[in-house]
Amino acid sequence: MEPYELSLAQVSEKIRTKELSPLELTESALARLDAVEPHITAFATVTAEAALAQATAATEEIAAGTYRGPLHGIPIGVKDLYNTAGVRTTSSSAQRADYVPDADSAAVAKLYEAGVVVLGKTHTHEFAFGATTPTTRNPWDTSTVPGGSSGGSGAAVGAGVTLIALGSDTGGSIRIPAAVCGTVGLKPTYGRASRAGVASLSWSLDHVGPLTRNVTDSAIVLNAMAGYDRRDPATVNRAVPDFTAGINDGVAGLKIGIPTNFFNHNVDPEITEATAAVAALYESLGAELVEVEVPMAELLVPTLWGIMMPEASAYHREVMRKTPELFTEEVRTLLQIGESILAVDYVNALRVRTLMQAAWRDLYSTVDVVLAPTVASLALNAENPVTTWGDGSVEGGTSAYSRLCGPANLTGMPALSVPSGFSKSGLPMGVQLIGRPFEESVILRAGRALEEATDFVGRIAPLKDLALA
Amino acid sequence: MEPYELSLAQVSEKIRTKELSPLELTESALARLDAVEPHITAFATVTAEAALAQATAATEEIAAGTYRGPLHGIPIGVKDLYNTAGVRTTSSSAQRADYVPDADSAAVAKLYEAGVVVLGKTHTHEFAFGATTPTTRNPWDTSTVPGGSSGGSGAAVGAGVTLIALGSDTGGSIRIPAAVCGTVGLKPTYGRASRAGVASLSWSLDHVGPLTRNVTDSAIVLNAMAGYDRRDPATVNRAVPDFTAGINDGVAGLKIGIPTNFFNHNVDPEITEATAAVAALYESLGAELVEVEVPMAELLVPTLWGIMMPEASAYHREVMRKTPELFTEEVRTLLQIGESILAVDYVNALRVRTLMQAAWRDLYSTVDVVLAPTVASLALNAENPVTTWGDGSVEGGTSAYSRLCGPANLTGMPALSVPSGFSKSGLPMGVQLIGRPFEESVILRAGRALEEATDFVGRIAPLKDLALA
Repeated sequence: MEPYELSLAQVSEKIRTKELSPLELTESALARLDAVEPHITAFATVTAEAALAQATAATEEIAAGTYRGPLHGIPIGVKDLYNTAGVRTTSSSAQRADYVPDADSAAVAKLYEAGVVVLGKTHTHEFAFGATTPTTRNPWDTSTVPGGSSGGSGAAVGAGVTLIALGSDTGGSIRIPAAVCGTVGLKPTYGRASRAGVASLSWSLDHVGPLTRNVTDSAIVLNAMAGYDRRDPATVNRAVPDFTAGINDGVAGLKIGIPTNFFNHNVDPEITEATAAVAALYESLGAELVEVEVPMAELLVPTLWGIMMPEASAYHREVMRKTPELFTEEVRTLLQIGESILAVDYVNALRVRTLMQAAWRDLYSTVDVVLAPTVASLALNAENPVTTWGDGSVEGGTSAYSRLCGPANLTGMPALSVPSGFSKSGLPMGVQLIGRPFEESVILRAGRALEEATDFVGRIAPLKDLALA
Repeated sequence: MEPYELSLAQVSEKIRTKELSPLELTESALARLDAVEPHITAFATVTAEAALAQATAATEEIAAGTYRGPLHGIPIGVKDLYNTAGVRTTSSSAQRADYVPDADSAAVAKLYEAGVVVLGKTHTHEFAFGATTPTTRNPWDTSTVPGGSSGGSGAAVGAGVTLIALGSDTGGSIRIPAAVCGTVGLKPTYGRASRAGVASLSWSLDHVGPLTRNVTDSAIVLNAMAGYDRRDPATVNRAVPDFTAGINDGVAGLKIGIPTNFFNHNVDPEITEATAAVAALYESLGAELVEVEVPMAELLVPTLWGIMMPEASAYHREVMRKTPELFTEEVRTLLQIGESILAVDYVNALRVRTLMQAAWRDLYSTVDVVLAPTVASLALNAENPVTTWGDGSVEGGTSAYSRLCGPANLTGMPALSVPSGFSKSGLPMGVQLIGRPFEESVILRAGRALEEATDFVGRIAPLKDLALA
């Protein structure tokens, strides 16, 4: 077994005991990257030389007796929205083709502090404004998209290049590629982790978080990322628990909400079936299933877009005036639409969101976690990422992928996407566990129970195309 | 001395000891109302019959041995924005000439619980969208305006009709009439008291609170009004202290911020002088004066209006479509302007507000309270409520009155307006004490120290015109 194939728990233990060095692991990861990258284009920039230097430094530090913890010497990918000091940070846009930040984003700085090695910057749908990531391919079937907007992170983790990659999630952009690429993805509570130094899509909906191969790995990364940061006014100054504590305690006694609406309309039947199987599994593990009705369901999608569009346009306004031609046509059009939205409509969307937050708080008086499919579709064809439903309607990939993720962005609730199985065609599927604000520990525990009871989690895409190549 | 002339402390004690009955007090207040109302038009609706019935009930309840506390049997005025069950609630607009709510607003319900008697509904600038209250006159000089938008409440308390009147404050609308009518006015922290059942001007800036004759009275009313209410999503679920506790502890050791900018540009020289005298008084009482610079000062006014205008237009949108002609031209024009504002501009105003909140938090690391004039002008002529400054510029009343109040609305910080003296022409002046979020107790303590060391607070307008009539 090559080092890149090991789980984080395995490699951390080997690194701690000096059985494996960060340099060996990084070399293994870079070899995997070289092998698969031509097929998936997960990376906007590969920083092999810097990574080897960081890995060498980590190796020496550990040899000298300083072991920083489970992230020490672990190679990661960083979504190209995150500023990285001295490293091109393009947001996968021609607007920032030559942008080299002076300083690291808060999350990257914290992960460096924890000892990680950065292999490179992963592709995003341009400025995170879309859910297919056209630059990149899905390692489970390279004729399909990896989801998005953190598509490069999903592809990198799904293909086994890194154990961890950072994503951002405004309407599902961590959970979507996690589900579509067969990885775990954690969107923490709004305000839990600092977004300072990360390009914004929609300031009141943006979250940062990890995509990982396993559930516990997400808890470990959140331990490093979480906490108040005065540079991000949304962050909340409250104690950060150890998110791995109690993660193996199982779901016995947990009340798991099973939505009777919204999450079951126009969803791929295989995904619906896999989600039901997860519910049955939880029940068999001692959880109590409770049917819940999603409140204000018909307003969820318009409210998300009604907030996201003008916030994105406000962020990009100056650049839209100067060099609109450097956006892709898709994103330029979205930004133009957002510029024309009236403040009264945005105000009303904010008011609706506030009512939704209250309604979801009520919902959580009866359950601890809500279980739902993460996305409505399997990986879509990269040439034409749309899906056709039983009622004959055709839905674009960004809509089909973001539709079920939006509630957790609008309410700020934490949500974890965990693999729920594979379709007959061999494509990954995912469920999301949505929890109460600041109760990441509960959804991590539920995710871990699912992981332990199944064999879906932690798989690496075999990249059959690669074998053929 | 007539009962209406007594302070709340005095009448409460007399009522508790049954030396004075709520009925006698209410009759005295209604007699005062009958005498002054033709000169000031403080009330949109007088509910004399209901008030006498409430006072009779309170008298009987107290006679039977149940004394509810310092508000039991006390006549109050209620701004006509607050819903009152079965009583016309017009917001001083033809739009709601016949609106009779089924239920009391949260604040009114809480005050009824505390035992108050409602004398009637006080005039507001139409839907609180202005700071002069054209319906109403100032009891200190009936050729002038009472300020606004809670102008009826300011006039009613200033004229001695009631000891207490409820107001609302979006850009100063409690503090402005308090300063201009010589009363105390308390805008609590954003989220401290429920706005459920109160017509909205700007949901993210609106606050409810009292105008009172004395500082302690404001603390007593806030004790009754404060607290979480799930019907107002802005309210914060946190413990409510007794706001009268420690109110007499003085200002020794308190750090009082003296702004070096923003609050000193285009302010009536008599008001500037009175404010400086208050600062000197505080220093003599043992407070430490600390010069502070108001952050992002040039953005305060545009940010307030950039948020308020579209929020107001969103609230009134349906009515504007149906019966625009029922608004006054002034308010209709403002609502039309608000409808045309783009979401991207509103988004940017919200982002600026967030930065301002952080900057003010920093400012409060060096001081406990900021002392500033409440308004820039004395009571303005009712026929032409504008002011001309030394630099030749002419400013409308709403601008001159709201300009210095806006910071506390944008940041949500609590602010208390206390009389600071009288102009040579005999018009009241006021200072505001602005505190840290949820530290109403500190500004009340500072206000009480000012009250105790001077003879400006608690005066009743003599209504010379009345004597002539």
